[in-house]
Amino acid sequence: MSEMKAIDSIIDELKGIVDSDRFFTNEEDLVSYSFDASFGIYMPEVVIQPTSTEEVQAIVKLANTHKVPICPRGQGTSLSGGPLPVKGGIVLDFAQWSSKLEIYPDDLVAVVSPGVLTAKINAAANDHGLMYPPDPSSSNVSTIGGNLAENAGGPRGLKYGVTKDYVLGLEIVTAEGEIIRTGGRTVKNVTGYDLTKLIVGSEGTLAIITEAILRLIPKPPASQTLMAVFDDIVDSGRSISKVLSSGILPAKMEIMDQTSVMAVENYQPLGLPTDIEAIILIELDGHPLAIQEEILKVQTICQEVGAREVKVASNEEEAEELWKARKLVSPAIVRLKPTKISEDATVPRSKIPDMFQRLKEIKEKYQIDLVVFGHAGDGNLHPNIIADQRDNEEMERVELAVEEIFKAAIELGGTLSGEHGIGTMKAPFMELELGKVGLNMMKRMKEAWDPNNILNPGKIFAEEGQKLVLRNER
Amino acid sequence: MSEMKAIDSIIDELKGIVDSDRFFTNEEDLVSYSFDASFGIYMPEVVIQPTSTEEVQAIVKLANTHKVPICPRGQGTSLSGGPLPVKGGIVLDFAQWSSKLEIYPDDLVAVVSPGVLTAKINAAANDHGLMYPPDPSSSNVSTIGGNLAENAGGPRGLKYGVTKDYVLGLEIVTAEGEIIRTGGRTVKNVTGYDLTKLIVGSEGTLAIITEAILRLIPKPPASQTLMAVFDDIVDSGRSISKVLSSGILPAKMEIMDQTSVMAVENYQPLGLPTDIEAIILIELDGHPLAIQEEILKVQTICQEVGAREVKVASNEEEAEELWKARKLVSPAIVRLKPTKISEDATVPRSKIPDMFQRLKEIKEKYQIDLVVFGHAGDGNLHPNIIADQRDNEEMERVELAVEEIFKAAIELGGTLSGEHGIGTMKAPFMELELGKVGLNMMKRMKEAWDPNNILNPGKIFAEEGQKLVLRNER
Repeated sequence: MSEMKAIDSIIDELKGIVDSDRFFTNEEDLVSYSFDASFGIYMPEVVIQPTSTEEVQAIVKLANTHKVPICPRGQGTSLSGGPLPVKGGIVLDFAQWSSKLEIYPDDLVAVVSPGVLTAKINAAANDHGLMYPPDPSSSNVSTIGGNLAENAGGPRGLKYGVTKDYVLGLEIVTAEGEIIRTGGRTVKNVTGYDLTKLIVGSEGTLAIITEAILRLIPKPPASQTLMAVFDDIVDSGRSISKVLSSGILPAKMEIMDQTSVMAVENYQPLGLPTDIEAIILIELDGHPLAIQEEILKVQTICQEVGAREVKVASNEEEAEELWKARKLVSPAIVRLKPTKISEDATVPRSKIPDMFQRLKEIKEKYQIDLVVFGHAGDGNLHPNIIADQRDNEEMERVELAVEEIFKAAIELGGTLSGEHGIGTMKAPFMELELGKVGLNMMKRMKEAWDPNNILNPGKIFAEEGQKLVLRNER
Repeated sequence: MSEMKAIDSIIDELKGIVDSDRFFTNEEDLVSYSFDASFGIYMPEVVIQPTSTEEVQAIVKLANTHKVPICPRGQGTSLSGGPLPVKGGIVLDFAQWSSKLEIYPDDLVAVVSPGVLTAKINAAANDHGLMYPPDPSSSNVSTIGGNLAENAGGPRGLKYGVTKDYVLGLEIVTAEGEIIRTGGRTVKNVTGYDLTKLIVGSEGTLAIITEAILRLIPKPPASQTLMAVFDDIVDSGRSISKVLSSGILPAKMEIMDQTSVMAVENYQPLGLPTDIEAIILIELDGHPLAIQEEILKVQTICQEVGAREVKVASNEEEAEELWKARKLVSPAIVRLKPTKISEDATVPRSKIPDMFQRLKEIKEKYQIDLVVFGHAGDGNLHPNIIADQRDNEEMERVELAVEEIFKAAIELGGTLSGEHGIGTMKAPFMELELGKVGLNMMKRMKEAWDPNNILNPGKIFAEEGQKLVLRNER
């Protein structure tokens, strides 16, 4: 109730900051901002679509004075609850702010507004023979602002790293409405604390990003794709280790387990063998002469490790055909059951076979439909559970299974989240990985930067007694 | 005086923490810890050589309770004053703690103690066909702990990035003596704030690093070196831009101006032409077939841009011969005059020609001996001023010139420090680059993590009225 009062007292002033067609308070408008690609429905009180740093500054200053929560949002593709307005307040919809997308080929940088779609950055870089490597699977629909807030990953993470590795500088608005610039246009910069890399991945809880300077790299001139089919999933794990220690660093190394492959074949038959335990897809990129030789080396390694079949794409069309299977996994599995819980628990590379074993045990113990695919090369698997949210009893088992997946990843020396973020979904498990002191040191930063707790409250840090809840009846 | 009392009250307890041969209070021992490779002499009150996290923890707890400054130190090769005990107190000498250097080839990681020499990590990785890329020129004598504290760079930064890009996890001791682990063994990790990348480069002011998990990569199988000689330094800058936008990313791209080349030829004649304005050295690495083709492409670009001569090394010995010149620049220029002020102001790549122009103007204006060399490919030049510290009038001009170099870098969109750190040397200029608010946001972190200001006090943040002083008579 007191929150309602807070927003009421500033609503007229807020309205004065932006054009009326970028300001929403009607329930039918607000409802579109009450969810993301994870779980839970939370209504904001106001939605504003800012298109300048000064507008953001004015909004934040008002909100801070009156202690009204602000939740920045891109396209809402978050899998961890990042943009959900769990404490009500203002949603800042940045998806309309895509005015700036500038490429500076001589500096190898791009300068972008928060609402630019990630794939468009790579496309613009491509016109100059350059590449913006981070490629979350949502890149055609997600904004760079959301990618920055969550430090998005993707298949290319294996060779090229994640979003954070390509951010040189930021313009941010602090909780007090001050505008500052972090980093700059140079790759090397050790002037004081690295605020840039701290803000990226802080899920909108420390500051609001209004512009970013991104690092671009020369585009590799060629690529090659290979598919290896394994009767034994442990052998597939060994092939990954052996390739990586052979001096070859592939751009991508993806795995699909039997259930993923079967789901794809049921959804859209591609002629993949379904009587196998795993399929590995490997993409090499670089100089054409180099990868031509390397792909043969990878082929030999897979065969030596016991692959039933290894297929090298002979041209781009064949390569695309092979990648099609991987891309169809997500749409295929939601055909089996309507609710998909997409996890991203990540383990050290050497623990991939152990993680597979643990996932198998969890699947049996809780009798859940578990599908495993993902970025095997960097240990960032995506165990996906498919279920029916209307089946309360099943969802309870799913909640327990998810919790056990997190624990398994941490016990194997891994992490709760490789690329999806903590948000609301994983907040209750933070202490498990970080310990009380580690978590407390993070909270100190939050308190130092956002003393009124207005920036995306309810994220990352769990409230007393907060638990994982995948059911909507809270 | 009050500080003396503080240390006196804990000296017996401190003595009990480590073996007596790792505890020093004699002036003749302390004096070795009163300087580094930058300027200024400051005596510590106690020097301790810890060799375990528990020892560090016990020392820090005592120091924090009694508000005694602690300055972590590696081999003292810092060019910015990082390890100087400017407020007295305890120097923690980590150079003796080199017990752990473990390579995990399957995980592509190394786990190291803070006192391990950086070059030894790369050598150990090399035994497994792997590489630890960061290569500050001090890597044979500097410790990884110092490299982590300062986020050291090096020539390979162009292609491979800097120290921070290879740190996956840390064990740290907080100002309150709590032990926490940040990050882990996975490349992807978005579990909460990125403490790892915040601590790396924080110059010992936020926490003390007691162990690090480093990322290794497959070692490139081959390399090729090329030297290009230019009559016009602006042409050399153009060749750098053109190579970088041609789809080729060299491992190193170094520049030496005429004064550097002449100093080398006077020191140890290598037969380099001295009637030129710049020499560029380029190293490519990767697959042998790829770089064989790429080196020809680079050669053509240099010739098209107007190089007087381009020489490709035909074997490893010839390549080493070419790199010898670059390595001799530092020892050669101190032969000219005894005092060397090594700067690392960094500009966006496209501004390299402008920076050369500005440096030329500064050299003339202050009549100083300025030599320019460094990592041209990433804009991280090393303008070195050579002078005689005993000549007070000259040193005054040098101080003014250094200040103007910093201002030029910032005006051109660059940064105060690319890889040497802020320390004591550049603290007075922080606000120039970051602004009052930006600097204040950094201070908030420092205060939140180290409320008693015991961790390396007097670094990064300048005191009221603090100025650059290169003379010792303060």
